Amino acid sequence: MREDFQAELDRVSSTLVTMARAVRETMRQASNALLTADHTMARQVTVRDDEIDVLYRVTEDRAYDLVAGQQRIAVDLRKAVTAIQVAADLKRMSGLAVHVARSVLRRHPTPAVVPELAELFRAMSTVADELSGKIVSALSGHDAVLAAQLDRDDDAMDHLHQRLFAVLLSPDWPMGVEAAIDGALLGRYYERYADNAVNVGHHVVVLVTGGQATTPV
Amino acid sequence: MREDFQAELDRVSSTLVTMARAVRETMRQASNALLTADHTMARQVTVRDDEIDVLYRVTEDRAYDLVAGQQRIAVDLRKAVTAIQVAADLKRMSGLAVHVARSVLRRHPTPAVVPELAELFRAMSTVADELSGKIVSALSGHDAVLAAQLDRDDDAMDHLHQRLFAVLLSPDWPMGVEAAIDGALLGRYYERYADNAVNVGHHVVVLVTGGQATTPV
Repeated sequence: MREDFQAELDRVSSTLVTMARAVRETMRQASNALLTADHTMARQVTVRDDEIDVLYRVTEDRAYDLVAGQQRIAVDLRKAVTAIQVAADLKRMSGLAVHVARSVLRRHPTPAVVPELAELFRAMSTVADELSGKIVSALSGHDAVLAAQLDRDDDAMDHLHQRLFAVLLSPDWPMGVEAAIDGALLGRYYERYADNAVNVGHHVVVLVTGGQATTPV
Repeated sequence: MREDFQAELDRVSSTLVTMARAVRETMRQASNALLTADHTMARQVTVRDDEIDVLYRVTEDRAYDLVAGQQRIAVDLRKAVTAIQVAADLKRMSGLAVHVARSVLRRHPTPAVVPELAELFRAMSTVADELSGKIVSALSGHDAVLAAQLDRDDDAMDHLHQRLFAVLLSPDWPMGVEAAIDGALLGRYYERYADNAVNVGHHVVVLVTGGQATTPV
């Protein structure tokens, strides 16, 4: 019975890997759309988000089936419930990619990110992609050490976020109110994306070790 | 055994009510601090957020104990796991109140919200308080109908959020970039607070009826 649980949990984990890859791809597409003002790519993000929604449902249902199975032990249950929380975190990350994509669609054909901020957002999108890449690796490799590293990578995003605000609020910001608001909100989406990635990291540690997670950011 | 489960679930629900009341109070204090530039009140929000963190832990532990109990049936398990999700949603709402409070602390003694936006933020704080008030009532009264109404109240917040952006982006906005960015981010915090309230509403329906929740916003 215990073996059945593990096999079924592996199946759930494998769906989480698929989900994490898709989430990585949404933010990649959203960032590319942002940096090149690409309307088609921005629209694809919303389609992909719908697919992630379906994956969330599948994960949740399977994890509940696991929880409802017989002869489970406490550590197994914690893992099954944690899988649902990882799926919810990933879903939120995809939602933030959709927010980025919507900014692109709203401003199109004008780029949503002004030239003054392009380099910073390129850096933020690189950090975001590294975070989601590590999530994919940690989930697929059952790697708690890699998952725990996500905290540190989040510091890089916070640092970029602070630099962004220094630029937006400098007295010689030349681009006016609308571009500043767009920049501030886009910055917030990337920052939250990283926060959610940290949450996933904490939860993956639980998934792998069965230990207790820290509270959500 | 089934009766024990119900009694224990009631205890968890009662902790959720305490948590929901505390979350309501954090946003009340944060809004008051925002509208009156009150430094002391803004700092109290962060203290209260720590208390909510403790309540989150208590709820999670008790819900896991419930999940790990004997002779449970699928609908009970879904309720127990849902309690954890409600606690996590409430925790996130408190975190957004902390974001509002931090804006107050950052700008103090200057108000974080400029006079031009005070009326809109007063309206947003009223909607936020109504939402969290309904959460308290729905949780304490096991009221799925009230919980389902939260969706509609969220529309009021979205409407205010759109009005806010119309003001910020009007050609005659007189207050400069910094005030516009503050307004945009504060608006986003209130909007997300409402989104999380809607999530709580969906989850409370599950807690009360044992049915399936919709995916997180």
